[in-house]
Amino acid sequence: MFDAILSSIPEPDARTAARCQELLDAKTKPRGSLGRLEELACRFAALTGKPVPPLPAKAVVVMAADHGVVEEGVSAYPAEVTGQMVANFARGGAAINVLARQVGARVEVVDVGVRYPVEGLEGVKVRRVGPGTANFTRGPAMTREQAEAALAVGVEVAQRLADEGVGLVGLGEMGIGNTTASSALTCVFTGLPPEVVVGRGTGVDDAGLARKVEAVRRGLEVNRPEAARPLEALAKVGGFELAGLAGVALGAASRRVPVMMDGFIASVAGLVAARLCPRVTPYLLASHLSVEVGHARVLEQLGQRPLLDLGLRLGEGSGAALAFGLVDAALRVLHEMATFTGAGVTDIPPPVR
Amino acid sequence: MFDAILSSIPEPDARTAARCQELLDAKTKPRGSLGRLEELACRFAALTGKPVPPLPAKAVVVMAADHGVVEEGVSAYPAEVTGQMVANFARGGAAINVLARQVGARVEVVDVGVRYPVEGLEGVKVRRVGPGTANFTRGPAMTREQAEAALAVGVEVAQRLADEGVGLVGLGEMGIGNTTASSALTCVFTGLPPEVVVGRGTGVDDAGLARKVEAVRRGLEVNRPEAARPLEALAKVGGFELAGLAGVALGAASRRVPVMMDGFIASVAGLVAARLCPRVTPYLLASHLSVEVGHARVLEQLGQRPLLDLGLRLGEGSGAALAFGLVDAALRVLHEMATFTGAGVTDIPPPVR
Repeated sequence: MFDAILSSIPEPDARTAARCQELLDAKTKPRGSLGRLEELACRFAALTGKPVPPLPAKAVVVMAADHGVVEEGVSAYPAEVTGQMVANFARGGAAINVLARQVGARVEVVDVGVRYPVEGLEGVKVRRVGPGTANFTRGPAMTREQAEAALAVGVEVAQRLADEGVGLVGLGEMGIGNTTASSALTCVFTGLPPEVVVGRGTGVDDAGLARKVEAVRRGLEVNRPEAARPLEALAKVGGFELAGLAGVALGAASRRVPVMMDGFIASVAGLVAARLCPRVTPYLLASHLSVEVGHARVLEQLGQRPLLDLGLRLGEGSGAALAFGLVDAALRVLHEMATFTGAGVTDIPPPVR
Repeated sequence: MFDAILSSIPEPDARTAARCQELLDAKTKPRGSLGRLEELACRFAALTGKPVPPLPAKAVVVMAADHGVVEEGVSAYPAEVTGQMVANFARGGAAINVLARQVGARVEVVDVGVRYPVEGLEGVKVRRVGPGTANFTRGPAMTREQAEAALAVGVEVAQRLADEGVGLVGLGEMGIGNTTASSALTCVFTGLPPEVVVGRGTGVDDAGLARKVEAVRRGLEVNRPEAARPLEALAKVGGFELAGLAGVALGAASRRVPVMMDGFIASVAGLVAARLCPRVTPYLLASHLSVEVGHARVLEQLGQRPLLDLGLRLGEGSGAALAFGLVDAALRVLHEMATFTGAGVTDIPPPVR
């Protein structure tokens, strides 16, 4: 599967990006004065292959799953909350629902392995790979087959969204314990020790933080995941929602759909995707810098600068939805602004520095 | 006039802010996990006196004027561009029109002293205090009476907008040469030398930058403005649009309307307002951090952390309009999110650290 996707992800088109910049330079503003909005517009041009990309239909995919490692006391919340929050998403009452509504984005909720699911929720896609992962401090979180199955769920969801006309996908997640799994994967891919990478997640106290560091340390010791074998690493210390989101990134990129990562967990999923298929990397955009300490290290690995820095640590795709507004702004500038010639405004040659 | 406004600006209401935080803490998310969005919501509660402030009707006031100091070769663009851009605003083709449309904000364009105006533009308020300021390297930019007149224009515009139901005002500007005047005022209020404060504005080359530093130095030497006399300083080295925007800030605060500053120039106007009437300070929000080097120093003086850092250096209120989206997001969370109790999600007590 990955081979087929890898070969189907187009490289960004630098000439189309350059054409987009020329169009921006003709608009009634000093050249480059819209900073990162101009970069965003050009990046969309490069990824979509269109010098004036249309305003994309948007979706946030929220993958939900549970983690065996919560037995170790690594989270402030009980595992029941994952399923309760999925019900909250289905009813439209969570932060991601509110923020997605504001920017006109769909929220696509996928149960890829919730341990205590609320049954019969309308609009939730049920694609459970298992009843949460196993406790990775005692052995692998999942089998290789489960990791592949969760990845396939993500690929399928993303490609279906692309078929339905979605042109920008956000990565969101819900899973009590998933900052612990994300921290373990971050250790694998950065080589950093757990003490440097592990943060407070949804808000554990000092004792919880110590248990979390220890759980990650034992997970790495027991399973010996290797950066050079990303699929195995994902199976050994990852999570179903992390695998699912990595699949979403791959599936979206295979259809030239840019991917807006959210915070720490979604960015780890992006990093897994990039290690599985390096050609996905340019499709990954960083929406914001999370409070979670490991996040900056993950973005470094991806070579990404976040668009926002708002002290967020919620997940669900909340930061991705906020950044969707900046994408719309960047593309609207390209579509709607007047040119120097059209508006009769005196232009000057670009400064030589 | 200032005495009446000063006494009519209410202090922020800390109890209402605390009530807003309680309401946010009941929402289905870890406490504080929406970071600066939660701060924004509480600040609106404090300023408006409402624990759940309504989503505000929004306006960006773009004050346009010219500067005698452009004779000194301080700008990359000729003075004609100010009037041409006002025409562009009137026709809806500028960046601020596009970004304001996205967030449903009005754009209120005021000619407070354009040198080469385009006559008969629909929707532009003509309140010219003079045909641009005088060249401040040879004497004061304006008289004290002109400074007061421009301030009064801003107060009137803001109070009228408040009367029309506007609940959030952005400060925007257009004026070739106005980073030079803003730099001079920044030197006055920070005590920093021109070499530290002066930046490239719309994009002057090295020779232009040197002329700009020298113009500011001469302006300060010739006029001897003092921080302790802000109205005189504004008259000596300021600009009509800077005075007008300071007036907008005062007028808005007098009606409990929060003020979103844009970049360097709008923030200098905010600083002038704060020095004239310190009670305006809490009403001033910093939308973004400009590329212009002096901006961070101005925000330090105001004790404000910018919401966005996107490498913008356009002005017009563009960053303010972008930040309006964050205000809406913050307030929508307060209005639309479910509570732990209402959604049947297990809450945990706040962590003790």
